[in-house]
Amino acid sequence: MQVAYTSAEIAVIVGAQRTAGTTTRTIGDIASLTTARAGDLSFLGNAKYKAQVADSLATVLLLPPDYPGEPRAGQVFLYVDNPSVALAKVCARIESTLWPKPPAGIHPSAIVAPTALIDPTAHIGPFCVIEDGVSVGAGSVLQASVFVGRDARIGKGCFVMPGCLIASTCSLANRVRLQPGVVIGSDGFGYEFVQGRHEKVPQIGTVVIGDDVEIGANSTLDRARFSRTMVGEGTKIDNLVQIAHNVVIGRHCILCAQVGISGSTTLEDYVIMGGQAGLGGHITLAKGSKVGGGAGVTSNVPAGAYVNGTPAIPFMLERRLAVLHQRLPDLFKRVAALEKKPE
Amino acid sequence: MQVAYTSAEIAVIVGAQRTAGTTTRTIGDIASLTTARAGDLSFLGNAKYKAQVADSLATVLLLPPDYPGEPRAGQVFLYVDNPSVALAKVCARIESTLWPKPPAGIHPSAIVAPTALIDPTAHIGPFCVIEDGVSVGAGSVLQASVFVGRDARIGKGCFVMPGCLIASTCSLANRVRLQPGVVIGSDGFGYEFVQGRHEKVPQIGTVVIGDDVEIGANSTLDRARFSRTMVGEGTKIDNLVQIAHNVVIGRHCILCAQVGISGSTTLEDYVIMGGQAGLGGHITLAKGSKVGGGAGVTSNVPAGAYVNGTPAIPFMLERRLAVLHQRLPDLFKRVAALEKKPE
Amino acid sequence: MQVAYTSAEIAVIVGAQRTAGTTTRTIGDIASLTTARAGDLSFLGNAKYKAQVADSLATVLLLPPDYPGEPRAGQVFLYVDNPSVALAKVCARIESTLWPKPPAGIHPSAIVAPTALIDPTAHIGPFCVIEDGVSVGAGSVLQASVFVGRDARIGKGCFVMPGCLIASTCSLANRVRLQPGVVIGSDGFGYEFVQGRHEKVPQIGTVVIGDDVEIGANSTLDRARFSRTMVGEGTKIDNLVQIAHNVVIGRHCILCAQVGISGSTTLEDYVIMGGQAGLGGHITLAKGSKVGGGAGVTSNVPAGAYVNGTPAIPFMLERRLAVLHQRLPDLFKRVAALEKKPE
Repeated sequence: MQVAYTSAEIAVIVGAQRTAGTTTRTIGDIASLTTARAGDLSFLGNAKYKAQVADSLATVLLLPPDYPGEPRAGQVFLYVDNPSVALAKVCARIESTLWPKPPAGIHPSAIVAPTALIDPTAHIGPFCVIEDGVSVGAGSVLQASVFVGRDARIGKGCFVMPGCLIASTCSLANRVRLQPGVVIGSDGFGYEFVQGRHEKVPQIGTVVIGDDVEIGANSTLDRARFSRTMVGEGTKIDNLVQIAHNVVIGRHCILCAQVGISGSTTLEDYVIMGGQAGLGGHITLAKGSKVGGGAGVTSNVPAGAYVNGTPAIPFMLERRLAVLHQRLPDLFKRVAALEKKPE
Repeated sequence: MQVAYTSAEIAVIVGAQRTAGTTTRTIGDIASLTTARAGDLSFLGNAKYKAQVADSLATVLLLPPDYPGEPRAGQVFLYVDNPSVALAKVCARIESTLWPKPPAGIHPSAIVAPTALIDPTAHIGPFCVIEDGVSVGAGSVLQASVFVGRDARIGKGCFVMPGCLIASTCSLANRVRLQPGVVIGSDGFGYEFVQGRHEKVPQIGTVVIGDDVEIGANSTLDRARFSRTMVGEGTKIDNLVQIAHNVVIGRHCILCAQVGISGSTTLEDYVIMGGQAGLGGHITLAKGSKVGGGAGVTSNVPAGAYVNGTPAIPFMLERRLAVLHQRLPDLFKRVAALEKKPE
Repeated sequence: MQVAYTSAEIAVIVGAQRTAGTTTRTIGDIASLTTARAGDLSFLGNAKYKAQVADSLATVLLLPPDYPGEPRAGQVFLYVDNPSVALAKVCARIESTLWPKPPAGIHPSAIVAPTALIDPTAHIGPFCVIEDGVSVGAGSVLQASVFVGRDARIGKGCFVMPGCLIASTCSLANRVRLQPGVVIGSDGFGYEFVQGRHEKVPQIGTVVIGDDVEIGANSTLDRARFSRTMVGEGTKIDNLVQIAHNVVIGRHCILCAQVGISGSTTLEDYVIMGGQAGLGGHITLAKGSKVGGGAGVTSNVPAGAYVNGTPAIPFMLERRLAVLHQRLPDLFKRVAALEKKPE
């Protein structure tokens, strides 16, 4: 961050009820209570860290109204109903300063096909390539070096970072956010083994991304063999995630980094997957189910279940078996002792 | 897909022997028997789904000549020897419509070094960078923002999607297909630990890709320390796969998504690796061997063997051990009972 | 490689003490003793391979002064104190030939904001985008299609390969080397679950990369929620690695390919992680600790410890348990036998 706010400016941003102390320093960064130094803003987000406030070196602190202590010299306390919410307000302000929305219009270096429909309020950045029949909706931003293939559709208020690719016929709904390097609509991985060779099965389907989806850097989503690979509204996908062809992901799911999902698998709404977990093909994870980090799931998971391990089994059972696994040396000894017992 | 075919057009594409029923709808999509809606094409690819045909809402159905039922109102049956083959014909037609081959020539925005040899039938798309000494063969397509380093060689009929990089001295043979974001020829990961620091070992080898290889989105293949990292003819590599320096991959292998292969490991022909599987360095997977998804292989695998788990062991053994692992709670109880037995 | 050296030229490069034999061939490649063919250079890097020298088909061989044998016809022996060091000299020479440093200056196709400070000795390649307030230090090279966001800072002698992104406010120190497609400063993956939806937590921190760091192709490093995601001096990161927000990595660490590190985790100096290993969030790996390939670490690791498995435990224990796991069939039989024993 390269920002500078006075404590008075922060008091206004957060709508402080009351302030205590004074400082002449400007605030240039945010830090936790224990790591904050002079010039930092910090906050008491959770009452259990109350004892850390007195020792915090932060210059400005966001505190609940009933916090009893006093600021040190050169320190300012700002009292607010909810310090976490107040911090989020500061962050949002900083965000808009750091990354102001680029102006509407098409950069002269971008190559936009004559039949593409670009809303006049959209921003098409340098070195973007927009092919025939594409539409880009109101307020959407394509930062730089974004490729949008024939007949793809980008809705309103989307934010597509540099180096992303949205292949032919794929679509983003509204307010979709793609981190750098995302690939939407690469070919599904399908071959038929004919006379000692893998012959490509045409992959002519598409990818459909719902409203408010976010996808992390360098993640890849394959187009369907036919029909659609789908990601439902509000789902959040982290970096380096692989989504194979014909996968259907419900609404408001969370997929952590490096997750891999094999072809034709379905995630219902509110599924959560830990990092590096993998799913086999043609299975269903029912509503609200949860997969532990690194787990390998090879069969259906019931609604609300939490599975772990490879092959994944119910979390509590997996934990119990792991404990028993660690007691194997003892078990082998006990069996040997039994075998030696005189009859 | 944004296509529209009449049932009569489809009958011609597939070479239907016979038709039954009529419809005025055009066909705009393909779907399975159970998910098809009005306006879709579907097919009976496997006799075991025969019972699903009667309830299918597809407007046009590809069926074997001996299918006994009758179309509903507004539905058309097209009888063909092999409905799967017939479907592939339709897919191929749609594919050529959706993604017509771009015209020969070099886009005015591309930067092509004077010593590069670009066949006049090749297509070099916008924002490509072609360095000195590069050759690109007949009919090859570099879509957009493709970087080809000094003295790299691209054969005939290759298709390189946006954002790919083919580094200096690396080569693609003929009909190689790279999905978006593929990196060919990044440095191998080699360091020597000298006086508390990791000193880089120069990586001056290359990467050689054989005929008809396909590589998935954002996969990375490192150049050799010296000599070559190789991928044999007909091998298919999925998304986000990592191939380290001096790896040698044989012909007609299949590497599913997120596979990782450590340095100097060899895969002979027809090896298959499931998703997220990893191989240690300096080992050999012999001809036709198979690695389960997520497995971690640390030693050689014999020809035709199927291994699974981490460290990987023969598949059947791994399965049996997994079953016994789940019976550990019972085993602990049985041993406790034996210990309590009076002597 | 596309190089050609005479044996006399190589003798000069390595500073040979003595030569034996003669050849008219030029050297065009390097290979190991057993794989070398005519026209190759090879070397005896380790005394245990001494027996392979006599059968090697290499045209030129780098050997220690006390090597007793004689070259065959058309073969040249070059005697040097340390054949490995001598080979490194040849490799470095080839490297500088293959990849000469590009000239200083800004390519006319690059888009550089007026407020960016580009050192006159730096190279900004084609299709790069440099936003406002960026600085690029002396001798740094940005190859092609590199995006550098507002107020980002690139030090001296960095080498940034095609397609990399360095997002707003992030910084590289000196001599940092980024392989193609690296993403520095994508958003951290942070959401709060509010009324059935995942609301984005602003990610306004930055990423700070120390001197002499190398990062592999298509790896991703997220910016901090606030404060910094950090990678310490001399650390080497392989391809397709994921570093989450607020991770702090010490100096001289090694992270092999496809490693994933969850948010707010700390690696102290000299930590080594094998390929595909994963770390949970908010843990610390103390100085010099080591994580086996594919392991999943969920709790702190002490200094110097070596852990393996999922969840990771001390390596020797993990190995012992793996051996006992494979003996489970026997154990079940032995318990069954005990149960059958007459009382």
